[in-house]
Amino acid sequence: MTQLLATAPNAETAPMILAGVLLSLVFIYLASKLGGELSKLVDLPPVLGELVAGVVVGVSALHLLVFPETGAAASDSVVITILQQIAGLNPESTQEVFALSSEVISVLAELGVIILLFEIGLESDLRELQKVGSQAAVVAVVGVVAPFIAGTAGLMLIFGLPTIPAVFAGAALTATSIGITSKVLSELGQLKSTEGQIIVGAAIIDDILGIIVLAVVASLARTGEVDVTNLVYLIISATAFILGSIFLGKFFNKSFVAIAEKLQTRGKLVIPALIFAFSMAFLANAIGLEAILGAFAAGLVLDETDKRKELDKEIIPIADILVPIFFVSVGAKVDLSVLNPTSVDNRQGLIIAAFLIVVAIISKLITGWTVFGKEKINRLAIGIGMIPRGEVGLVFAGIAEASGVLDKPLQAAIIIMVIVTTFVAPPLLRFAFPQGELTEKPDLALEK
Amino acid sequence: MTQLLATAPNAETAPMILAGVLLSLVFIYLASKLGGELSKLVDLPPVLGELVAGVVVGVSALHLLVFPETGAAASDSVVITILQQIAGLNPESTQEVFALSSEVISVLAELGVIILLFEIGLESDLRELQKVGSQAAVVAVVGVVAPFIAGTAGLMLIFGLPTIPAVFAGAALTATSIGITSKVLSELGQLKSTEGQIIVGAAIIDDILGIIVLAVVASLARTGEVDVTNLVYLIISATAFILGSIFLGKFFNKSFVAIAEKLQTRGKLVIPALIFAFSMAFLANAIGLEAILGAFAAGLVLDETDKRKELDKEIIPIADILVPIFFVSVGAKVDLSVLNPTSVDNRQGLIIAAFLIVVAIISKLITGWTVFGKEKINRLAIGIGMIPRGEVGLVFAGIAEASGVLDKPLQAAIIIMVIVTTFVAPPLLRFAFPQGELTEKPDLALEK
Repeated sequence: MTQLLATAPNAETAPMILAGVLLSLVFIYLASKLGGELSKLVDLPPVLGELVAGVVVGVSALHLLVFPETGAAASDSVVITILQQIAGLNPESTQEVFALSSEVISVLAELGVIILLFEIGLESDLRELQKVGSQAAVVAVVGVVAPFIAGTAGLMLIFGLPTIPAVFAGAALTATSIGITSKVLSELGQLKSTEGQIIVGAAIIDDILGIIVLAVVASLARTGEVDVTNLVYLIISATAFILGSIFLGKFFNKSFVAIAEKLQTRGKLVIPALIFAFSMAFLANAIGLEAILGAFAAGLVLDETDKRKELDKEIIPIADILVPIFFVSVGAKVDLSVLNPTSVDNRQGLIIAAFLIVVAIISKLITGWTVFGKEKINRLAIGIGMIPRGEVGLVFAGIAEASGVLDKPLQAAIIIMVIVTTFVAPPLLRFAFPQGELTEKPDLALEK
Repeated sequence: MTQLLATAPNAETAPMILAGVLLSLVFIYLASKLGGELSKLVDLPPVLGELVAGVVVGVSALHLLVFPETGAAASDSVVITILQQIAGLNPESTQEVFALSSEVISVLAELGVIILLFEIGLESDLRELQKVGSQAAVVAVVGVVAPFIAGTAGLMLIFGLPTIPAVFAGAALTATSIGITSKVLSELGQLKSTEGQIIVGAAIIDDILGIIVLAVVASLARTGEVDVTNLVYLIISATAFILGSIFLGKFFNKSFVAIAEKLQTRGKLVIPALIFAFSMAFLANAIGLEAILGAFAAGLVLDETDKRKELDKEIIPIADILVPIFFVSVGAKVDLSVLNPTSVDNRQGLIIAAFLIVVAIISKLITGWTVFGKEKINRLAIGIGMIPRGEVGLVFAGIAEASGVLDKPLQAAIIIMVIVTTFVAPPLLRFAFPQGELTEKPDLALEK
């Protein structure tokens, strides 16, 4: 960590910090829109384009957006160079503006992922889940356990990694991306098919399990050692936190709606919702879990209210401006040069990336075969539907980066795994559901 | 300014900074909603309640939200005390968490005022303005010049203040609050009356003039001296910036709509709008003006597009979560103890506050009498309608705080002036428009 002398910003540097933040946001938004739209044009999920655009503007290439945590100096930052040209800052002020404006962007990115998880919670319908029932639950549990064990064990036994990084990378392999899968399924007209419902149901449970796993692993990483008592405490507290929120939420729901209906001033719905989400995020953080677990639980609770649709509509623009900061930052912090294949030192990182990709794909394919009770079910399609790691995988990578337990090659390998699994799933899914096998005529190959 | 040793946040302090920001936001939102709703209940503008609630949670009373710039130490902050109880931080980390989380909140507040001015720009309809025409323009110009000269001259001649603080306080007396006045007018059914149209028209021009005055004064404050060349440069550049934006905007408009229509991914309208607003804010900052001038100009430009209504709807929730951070922070940073009347040292500050209030009210009343060309116009009502300073006055106070040119008593006096003018205008306006004199039957007392 670079040690630097910083002052509480004074009248000279304060406007420069704001200028640095504004310029960084302009670069982030330009990158996210360019990347997202190009991705959409070639029929890939926009989030993938945002991530790749982040890599392009970040420390790996253009240096439009660099962070001190990655070891970059102020002089590496294009934003800071522009500010210097304009204001002629002295070296000390330059360091300060770089450190503080980067920190503001980092916190905005963290608020972005908190809002993202709040939104995912709002969109996870617990009642729908109960319908898909036990099949989805089995797929979800196997789909979390299989890649976690295969990944962690492989990294420790084959590559000789220490426990904490291996556990973290294993955990990053667990959670399926709801967003990407459900988008492709709906394009194929398979969202309401039995396979579609199992996949989406499993992906939701998967998210919950994945976030619990993340909360546990991140806490382990923070304490730096795997202590069984601590592990048991974390698993119990994370599970109790989610289940407790859902249970207490049933009572809280009514008060929330009653309060929101009494309010008269602007933001009467969104501000109480954010007070709740941020309080839960703070609470989760305070008891040693991750802030995002609290935000997710808050979303699950408010999803059950009558105000849900209205709230959803108001959260969307807020998510639209904050979430891209997260995805672009994750990309920008990845130093792809550590995987440059021309250098012999990088072989290990590349091999680990390849290993993670193979485990990520095979473990979810196996998961598909654990569906029981249906004769003619398309098990291959279910397995493929669970492959993309997307947003949630990136949340893991982001948290990993913040906790500082992963070395750069392993971190880059996780990002590569997320990108590849997200790239391969849509075409494979189209292949697994043959043309014409649409839900509009579901009796051809599917039982209802 | 306190000098302190800060590090780029490491794995231990990074989650604490996020926790500090989350807890501060919870306090800010609770204060803004409590204050805003109570204010609304007693039929006062919500923004006034938010400001007063900010004073209550801030350095003057509860210390839930304190900032290092006001001279507060980490141990004064309730947020930091709570974090220490939870995490047991060492003194150095405590300082760092306090400095960095406060800085993040300050930047969020600045983004809030940028979004606020962008929204005001979006709502200022330039075509409507042309209808009210010359009468509104005269009222606006007199309404800016009269309080500015009376305030600045009075502070220098009567109280012997130096030029820069006197000019700043004089400038804070200029801009009328559109929001508060137009709300009261519409409640009285007078928004479409001749008086109502002149008031609103003048208030819009007033805003533009006021923001130009602010940009000029803030730059003067930054350089620290009143240099005629610099003054002329600033006035010309600020005016050229606004007029240039409006002129070039007519061409840019079409490209903006064309681009927004081609985009397919989430945030397709709000992200390009923010790229434009933040770029303009950065540009204004870079040429030595205020960032808010750029955001306001961006709003004026986009107001002219077909996408305006759609964009307005998406900006509202974003403004709802960012703008209260600004108003509550402005209140929280005011140290009311400097105006405590039991101490003899504070007499000067109190007398200045009283002086500013008198000038603020009388100068706008005089402005009302400059309306020409109408026989039976209600000049008293026009003058009263221009009294409330509201949001824009607070923007002045916020900028003044950031630039550090005002001493605490003068700063508190400006806040008191804003509060009092905003309190007195609504009842006086009800008095000036006698009951029954509604626009529904406008021929009774008004010519159309």
